[in-house]
Amino acid sequence: MRKVCVVITARTSYTKIKPILVALKANPQVELKIVCAASALLDRYGKVELTVQKDGFSISERIYMVLEAETLLTSAKSVGMGVIEFAGAFDRLRPDVVLLMADRYEVIAPAIAASYQNIPLAHVQGGEVSGNIDEKVRHAITKFADLHFPATERARDWLVRMGERPETVFCTGCPSTDVANEVIQNPTIDFSVYKKYGGVGSHPNLDNGYIIVMQHPVTTEYADARKQVGETLHAVSELNRPVLWFWPNPDAGSDDTSKTLRSFRENNDCKWLHFMKSMEPADFLRILYASDGIVGNSSVAIRECSYLGVPAINIGTRQANRERGPNVADVSHDRFEIRSAIERHLNGRVERSNLYGSGNAGKRIADIVSTVPLSFSKSIGYLT
Amino acid sequence: MRKVCVVITARTSYTKIKPILVALKANPQVELKIVCAASALLDRYGKVELTVQKDGFSISERIYMVLEAETLLTSAKSVGMGVIEFAGAFDRLRPDVVLLMADRYEVIAPAIAASYQNIPLAHVQGGEVSGNIDEKVRHAITKFADLHFPATERARDWLVRMGERPETVFCTGCPSTDVANEVIQNPTIDFSVYKKYGGVGSHPNLDNGYIIVMQHPVTTEYADARKQVGETLHAVSELNRPVLWFWPNPDAGSDDTSKTLRSFRENNDCKWLHFMKSMEPADFLRILYASDGIVGNSSVAIRECSYLGVPAINIGTRQANRERGPNVADVSHDRFEIRSAIERHLNGRVERSNLYGSGNAGKRIADIVSTVPLSFSKSIGYLT
Amino acid sequence: MRKVCVVITARTSYTKIKPILVALKANPQVELKIVCAASALLDRYGKVELTVQKDGFSISERIYMVLEAETLLTSAKSVGMGVIEFAGAFDRLRPDVVLLMADRYEVIAPAIAASYQNIPLAHVQGGEVSGNIDEKVRHAITKFADLHFPATERARDWLVRMGERPETVFCTGCPSTDVANEVIQNPTIDFSVYKKYGGVGSHPNLDNGYIIVMQHPVTTEYADARKQVGETLHAVSELNRPVLWFWPNPDAGSDDTSKTLRSFRENNDCKWLHFMKSMEPADFLRILYASDGIVGNSSVAIRECSYLGVPAINIGTRQANRERGPNVADVSHDRFEIRSAIERHLNGRVERSNLYGSGNAGKRIADIVSTVPLSFSKSIGYLT
Amino acid sequence: MRKVCVVITARTSYTKIKPILVALKANPQVELKIVCAASALLDRYGKVELTVQKDGFSISERIYMVLEAETLLTSAKSVGMGVIEFAGAFDRLRPDVVLLMADRYEVIAPAIAASYQNIPLAHVQGGEVSGNIDEKVRHAITKFADLHFPATERARDWLVRMGERPETVFCTGCPSTDVANEVIQNPTIDFSVYKKYGGVGSHPNLDNGYIIVMQHPVTTEYADARKQVGETLHAVSELNRPVLWFWPNPDAGSDDTSKTLRSFRENNDCKWLHFMKSMEPADFLRILYASDGIVGNSSVAIRECSYLGVPAINIGTRQANRERGPNVADVSHDRFEIRSAIERHLNGRVERSNLYGSGNAGKRIADIVSTVPLSFSKSIGYLT
Repeated sequence: MRKVCVVITARTSYTKIKPILVALKANPQVELKIVCAASALLDRYGKVELTVQKDGFSISERIYMVLEAETLLTSAKSVGMGVIEFAGAFDRLRPDVVLLMADRYEVIAPAIAASYQNIPLAHVQGGEVSGNIDEKVRHAITKFADLHFPATERARDWLVRMGERPETVFCTGCPSTDVANEVIQNPTIDFSVYKKYGGVGSHPNLDNGYIIVMQHPVTTEYADARKQVGETLHAVSELNRPVLWFWPNPDAGSDDTSKTLRSFRENNDCKWLHFMKSMEPADFLRILYASDGIVGNSSVAIRECSYLGVPAINIGTRQANRERGPNVADVSHDRFEIRSAIERHLNGRVERSNLYGSGNAGKRIADIVSTVPLSFSKSIGYLT
Repeated sequence: MRKVCVVITARTSYTKIKPILVALKANPQVELKIVCAASALLDRYGKVELTVQKDGFSISERIYMVLEAETLLTSAKSVGMGVIEFAGAFDRLRPDVVLLMADRYEVIAPAIAASYQNIPLAHVQGGEVSGNIDEKVRHAITKFADLHFPATERARDWLVRMGERPETVFCTGCPSTDVANEVIQNPTIDFSVYKKYGGVGSHPNLDNGYIIVMQHPVTTEYADARKQVGETLHAVSELNRPVLWFWPNPDAGSDDTSKTLRSFRENNDCKWLHFMKSMEPADFLRILYASDGIVGNSSVAIRECSYLGVPAINIGTRQANRERGPNVADVSHDRFEIRSAIERHLNGRVERSNLYGSGNAGKRIADIVSTVPLSFSKSIGYLT
Repeated sequence: MRKVCVVITARTSYTKIKPILVALKANPQVELKIVCAASALLDRYGKVELTVQKDGFSISERIYMVLEAETLLTSAKSVGMGVIEFAGAFDRLRPDVVLLMADRYEVIAPAIAASYQNIPLAHVQGGEVSGNIDEKVRHAITKFADLHFPATERARDWLVRMGERPETVFCTGCPSTDVANEVIQNPTIDFSVYKKYGGVGSHPNLDNGYIIVMQHPVTTEYADARKQVGETLHAVSELNRPVLWFWPNPDAGSDDTSKTLRSFRENNDCKWLHFMKSMEPADFLRILYASDGIVGNSSVAIRECSYLGVPAINIGTRQANRERGPNVADVSHDRFEIRSAIERHLNGRVERSNLYGSGNAGKRIADIVSTVPLSFSKSIGYLT
Repeated sequence: MRKVCVVITARTSYTKIKPILVALKANPQVELKIVCAASALLDRYGKVELTVQKDGFSISERIYMVLEAETLLTSAKSVGMGVIEFAGAFDRLRPDVVLLMADRYEVIAPAIAASYQNIPLAHVQGGEVSGNIDEKVRHAITKFADLHFPATERARDWLVRMGERPETVFCTGCPSTDVANEVIQNPTIDFSVYKKYGGVGSHPNLDNGYIIVMQHPVTTEYADARKQVGETLHAVSELNRPVLWFWPNPDAGSDDTSKTLRSFRENNDCKWLHFMKSMEPADFLRILYASDGIVGNSSVAIRECSYLGVPAINIGTRQANRERGPNVADVSHDRFEIRSAIERHLNGRVERSNLYGSGNAGKRIADIVSTVPLSFSKSIGYLT
């Protein structure tokens, strides 16, 4: 019996964690522990903890760590709070292995809390290239991690080049493709978006196509956050097409984004525009799959949409250097560029790609993490 | 004018930081800020902050972060406290660049606090191989750092393989060789060890040779800390040679070590044995240079002693895989092995080596960090 | 020269602190230090720090301490964070005396941080009776404080009964009456509420009278917060009178209040309703002075409005037991009671009262705190 | 079934808490939860948690909160850490009532953590007078507490005067008298002090009388801590009587005390002197009961010794204003005064007193706390 502890810190990463949780829960050799932390507990970001529970999982520990203000200073202090609280949680839970997802700023906290207590660490989605603080965090977590589940072959190669032993690196694909795969199998949308998920703004008719927007503030361009979101707002406002706009994550700057959105909504007639918080992952992918395409800078546009064949306009530098399939068109933070790219590009499904996995990553990760020999001791010295 | 902030967290790293500080202070283009943290402020570990001030430097911020108890849990929580406090300190100081040394567990705290606030980070002594939590911490700091000052060519190669741009990696050698170089130029010991530094225990005559012992607990072998230090104690007790024993650092387990030492001293007649806390770095190297050799698991034995040509008995796994010169003999935690290695090996000076530098690292690091273009943005993507 | 450090943690208390700050700043014998903390730094609560600066004061330290989530758990943890951060701030500022206002949950943090570092503590508005966690906090701060500036004679008596030496207790009145006094001297409103302060909702015509609403969630009735605010919303919605509604403070529950308000606004036609964040204190009192009256559970209704002669409907238990003048009518959280009280009671100015001061408290407090002998040592033993 | 959570933070308070724990554990209507915190977990202060477990109690949560350095700054920050950690512990344990003992600086942390989460709070030993930061802390805890168990009638009166409702104040006596009562019933010492408890220093013969010393640093006289302990050391060194010296608590300054003691021991021939850490409470009282008397500034000398009839020399201001029986002689920090008081006063048993209780406090407190109606809502307004 192996005690596997999985950490959930945000709505977007939960989408990718859920297939792993499902497989871990189904495995009789696994005692599953779930820790929910950071924005996963916060109302402003859709409180994913409720979805986690509705999905049939029980939460062992809740970690409140977000120091309000959303400046770079408070982001850093929030990580400190997170280290303190995760250390206590892991000391109480005493897991055999802790599994972390990706690269959000707060994920370094459980990585340290586990490593410093000699608890083996598994990391999903290491080795990728993105070009900002996320990339620093991602590779730093790699250097703490003892097991790696990269999503692509290029990521796998990077992990080995960085000194991780090949036998600890498993290229399983990204579990987001698992959900995408289910959606392709069963694409029917059996709910009303507005009734089931609420949100604010108008209720444009979605029957004849619509666009999804999902744009996060870019930490290192903090001061420009308002301007950037404004460009996108103006671009989509001129299209006369329905838009579902999803609120951003709790990074530094997201409050400014929120204000810009709110103020735009209050000062313009926005019959075409509806704002939403999070959806259940599979619902979201169905909405995405049925859409004309996605605009913004979310990794969903690169990852799930390449598997689904949904066209995407990727704005700015946030996803710079991330591997992309044929579904993505890149533009800068300029309303005219954005608008013209949407008009050219968002016209029906494009070719699908297995770049980010083949739809069975969750099961493979769960199988490996529950059976592979565990160690918290590693060194690049094995090569020298 | 560039504002350079240097972090000091422990006695041992201060030895290597001082040559950099001296060069930075002498540079009229640099505004030097010093942050003292963790055990550097604690009486139990020799309060290096006092030495820093006596050396003519002024301290801008003091960061108390060590949560008492010295379990793995409190080590982790101490890091969390450190992140919170360093974040505030850097927010107040607003440095252009933060410079960190090496790999002690607490150093990850300023690395995060700086990176998350978009402050460029310089790291001295990255890329080395040691095989425990220190190695994880060291490489994680590398992944946050924007400038690198490795000590050896092998370390330089590792940093580049891990994805650091070659133009950000400067193989300057280890500044500990700078102090060693001064000591070789002027080896005269113009003080009485016992008078100047106190300590407890007997006052064996040092005129006809003596042995230095410096043994740190090994985090991942926490439970064995007592046993391990006991083996060394017994080994040196049978030699009939004077021993100067230096107290260990505040890692998890060091309290157990202290207890073992204290209890041994109280239950045995130890005419040959004197216990000490920290010395001023140059004094310490002179004492080392004049000694018959060093026993334990300190990196001093590998680094400074290779440059000085002082023979060293390295015990156990703490320095596993660290590059070593011809001065080092490795043994396991076994009193008979240790004793016989001392008898065979600690008989006069051995060949000197430039493996860890050529005695001018401090000046070179200071020159580069104060003039090189700074950035907090990096990506391994430059290669792909 | 005495270094006086004043702590500001929220919009409402700043109203009362400003007259003290003005007098301290004008005093050449005083070196004034201001620490802004908690919701005073947060956008969601009107970021009073900006007002403080616009009023000509400079802020020495900013203390981010609000752990997001607004549960009782995070309120408690926020206090812990506050103690850590205030301790550091006071250690850096080294004030001769720290001055705190009132009884919000976070104010216990600077009280502890000062007392535990032997810094004399002055407390404004102790000795009052309110009947919830605020009262516990208020009296606990009293027991840490060395100087007391109660607002009323009854409060003064209570402080002495609790063991505070009479010579350390100065009944100066509440500085909120100072602002009220200025407003009475010069009641002209020379700005447009909507232009100067924005806010959301409709822009009802304010020329023929309007009602102010200010209702805070009551901590110990957390679950009922939504229901309570709903009763008030319905009551005022039926009046056909313009309403300016001010958003509540960041206590546990305020997020629920916000949601209720937002949802009401989106689901009803609210031509009569405008929502606002904070105003500059004097502007606010002018708006209040010119209004038909105030509804809710704010202490402004009890305190400033008694001095101004503005009628007030006080709802529920939040102000239970607070001394009140003839301007206040009490009702429970019931829409019919609230409505009928408004109709009966909110019809023009009522008799003014000096119960809470005579309009010169700020000057008196500043004079005393800058000249009285200071000590951090006290005991109820002087009586026995 | 009522869930009662008892907090233990130090060796000395455990002596008084144990009789309550014994009675609570024996009560089938009580689910007992124990939280150990602060110095109760630290080796340097005798790790009382081990005694707690040996006494048959199980510990539900451990709270590491002591930030090392022992300055006033770190004491304050430790409290902040304590609030954060206690808040989490109480959130997990969800007790019906939390019971706290006395007035050590760290006890304010659980008081806040419980009160801010609406958990009723019971406080043992409120209402006493001592004249330093302890007194501030004690009364502040009183103002958070909902149930009070003062030790003396005078303390009871004070609590009521401070506004606590008489029906929430129960004068049960101090549970330290319970242990003292047991010791009087069975005074036989069936162990060897040196064998059972170790310690360091000489092993003077205790058969013909000996003196106990227990002297804590006084926070507000931080700089003088070394000098004060030195006076006592010199005084007892001149007596030619065996001395058992107990190490002080982890307050600011205690490190200096320890250094003074250690250095004295190393520089003097101390055949008469033995240093000890904590003992099991009953053992300690037996040793005390069999002694010639106690010297220092511990409350044990005032409290337990008045019940036992053991003569005490109380030094300095730490116990100023505390009620005392006929067994106490007060002196200042002067070696001659101390010595002459010992010679005059420490010559055999003195009259016993019931000032601090009649030996059944633990049972009475446990009975009341497990049956009395609980509330977290209180106000001094009931009087007005």
